[in-house]
Amino acid sequence: MIIDIHGHYTTEPQPLLAFRDKQLAGLADPMRKPATSELNISDEDLVRSVQPQLKLQKERGSDLTIFSPRAAGMAHHVGTEATGSEWSRMSNDLIHRICTLLPDNFAPVGQLPQHPGVSPKNCIVELERLAKLGFVGVNLNPDPAGGYWTDPPLIDKWWYPLYEKLCELEMTAMIHVTSSCNPAFHYTGAHYINGDTTAFMQLIQGNLFKDFPTLRFVIPHGGGAVPFHWGRFRGIALDNKRPELVEIMGQNVFFDTCVYHQPGIDLLTKVVPADNILFASEMVGAVKGIDPNTGNYFDDTKRYVDGTPNLSAADKQKIFEGNALKVYPRLKAQIEKQARGNA
Amino acid sequence: MIIDIHGHYTTEPQPLLAFRDKQLAGLADPMRKPATSELNISDEDLVRSVQPQLKLQKERGSDLTIFSPRAAGMAHHVGTEATGSEWSRMSNDLIHRICTLLPDNFAPVGQLPQHPGVSPKNCIVELERLAKLGFVGVNLNPDPAGGYWTDPPLIDKWWYPLYEKLCELEMTAMIHVTSSCNPAFHYTGAHYINGDTTAFMQLIQGNLFKDFPTLRFVIPHGGGAVPFHWGRFRGIALDNKRPELVEIMGQNVFFDTCVYHQPGIDLLTKVVPADNILFASEMVGAVKGIDPNTGNYFDDTKRYVDGTPNLSAADKQKIFEGNALKVYPRLKAQIEKQARGNA
Repeated sequence: MIIDIHGHYTTEPQPLLAFRDKQLAGLADPMRKPATSELNISDEDLVRSVQPQLKLQKERGSDLTIFSPRAAGMAHHVGTEATGSEWSRMSNDLIHRICTLLPDNFAPVGQLPQHPGVSPKNCIVELERLAKLGFVGVNLNPDPAGGYWTDPPLIDKWWYPLYEKLCELEMTAMIHVTSSCNPAFHYTGAHYINGDTTAFMQLIQGNLFKDFPTLRFVIPHGGGAVPFHWGRFRGIALDNKRPELVEIMGQNVFFDTCVYHQPGIDLLTKVVPADNILFASEMVGAVKGIDPNTGNYFDDTKRYVDGTPNLSAADKQKIFEGNALKVYPRLKAQIEKQARGNA
Repeated sequence: MIIDIHGHYTTEPQPLLAFRDKQLAGLADPMRKPATSELNISDEDLVRSVQPQLKLQKERGSDLTIFSPRAAGMAHHVGTEATGSEWSRMSNDLIHRICTLLPDNFAPVGQLPQHPGVSPKNCIVELERLAKLGFVGVNLNPDPAGGYWTDPPLIDKWWYPLYEKLCELEMTAMIHVTSSCNPAFHYTGAHYINGDTTAFMQLIQGNLFKDFPTLRFVIPHGGGAVPFHWGRFRGIALDNKRPELVEIMGQNVFFDTCVYHQPGIDLLTKVVPADNILFASEMVGAVKGIDPNTGNYFDDTKRYVDGTPNLSAADKQKIFEGNALKVYPRLKAQIEKQARGNA
């Protein structure tokens, strides 16, 4: 089985976007606030909305996508904590329904109701609800301020209550920022990649996994700038009496393969151990076009993983499937449950 | 001649650091404010202070370092605009003296008296002074707020008066952030690399060089995350009807070789045209240690450039010397002037 661990629901039906508009309009004019029950999306609409993903799975040869709400749509910095909570629950419910409707194609990852300056403790109720619904992980935003980075670094005790619950529930966190309200940062071109690089450097600065040996973080987009600057990060770690990066990553930190050209995947697979790499494409996502040089979609990352000379067949099996089942401890049972039709 | 275009004065004599302490203490207690004339550093002290750089030049086989004040020392976000102006002038004067004292080893690049929220126009007086002193370029900080990114993106007209003057004076700008006062960002591990990535993405979002065809930006640290995510940035550019990255870079945007491992330099030289790469090591800089795997200094980047299979002899000549003389139009005359002993 080929598992793509990084897919966002970027093809939402129009009524969801209209609901969100009304919800945010309701902040300015309470008369416009919609009731949650107003969102009326049928099962048929949901299945229709993910046809692009199903088509790409088939064409590219992947089987299952670990699927979460649109990353830029989380927008934790927008509105109030209350609107954000409602928005998270609704977004997660749609993911749950899609995974129930298409149990062979999708497994669910959730959005947390984070809010800038608000304790991550407040996410625990939703996290527990997601665990009961069969979600295998969540997206954890290291910058709920959307490009202003006003919350504490990931190694700060600020985050510990959430980490305790993630460990208890065996939920895996992808460290993923949302949209940027800072004009300095283009969201998919700068903010996402900076978020990855920043998170990794924060993990070098502390010893978080001593306190949480079973906590698992996926840093997407190939780990941001880290593999390209592997020597720099190794050097900074060693200069600061921290261990080698492979030791820091260990059983806790994983990069995905959302790197959209062959030389990038070649570098990633050269410097990062195969045990710490997970197959992913982020489709339908940040880059939708076809590379005029190759005639293939930029985000058809399976080609690059297949095409790299750095991986043995055993390495590829890990990257395409084995690591995902290890890194997401709830995934195997969820796949089986979904196959039995009782997701 | 082998020209290292990225060296900062990170081995300042103690009296400079003591002066800076007093200067900032003077913000809280004006009684402590020192007079600029109090800084009494002899020529001998200056020459002694750069012995580490001279030793490394000799050992590694580079000839000339384009030398600027400590990047993290600029700290545009610290103190008032007035203290920042004084600090910039003093820092630049030391660079000027060092280049005059050691004309075969160093050529000067300056620090701008930027301040968050203050128009870059205010830097023009110092920029003109630097040009008269023979400086070949400046470090331009895209985030004077030190990690909060509250100033407009580089393509905004906010920056245009400074760009006009840079073009008029044929001064080249290295886009380089300073220290970070945001706990989310480690300065050399996250903020520097994010700054590079962010700046490049801003340049994709506009068409700055249509307005300034002769403006030249060096994006250090190998262009941040850009070469590793070359496909992503190409895809984002093309999706947004912008041209190929090599066309956007053209005669205007250059990356340096401050990438501290062989696979990184291999990737850089594979995807970025040799015409757009400048040799640099950032020594003595972000990473001081020796790579236990190779026994060589992480920042001994000449080894990686020498060792990559991607470059012809002609490419290497460009990267080590030819491109620097093109990208810094004032450099050739300044080298000659310094050689004649009238820098």
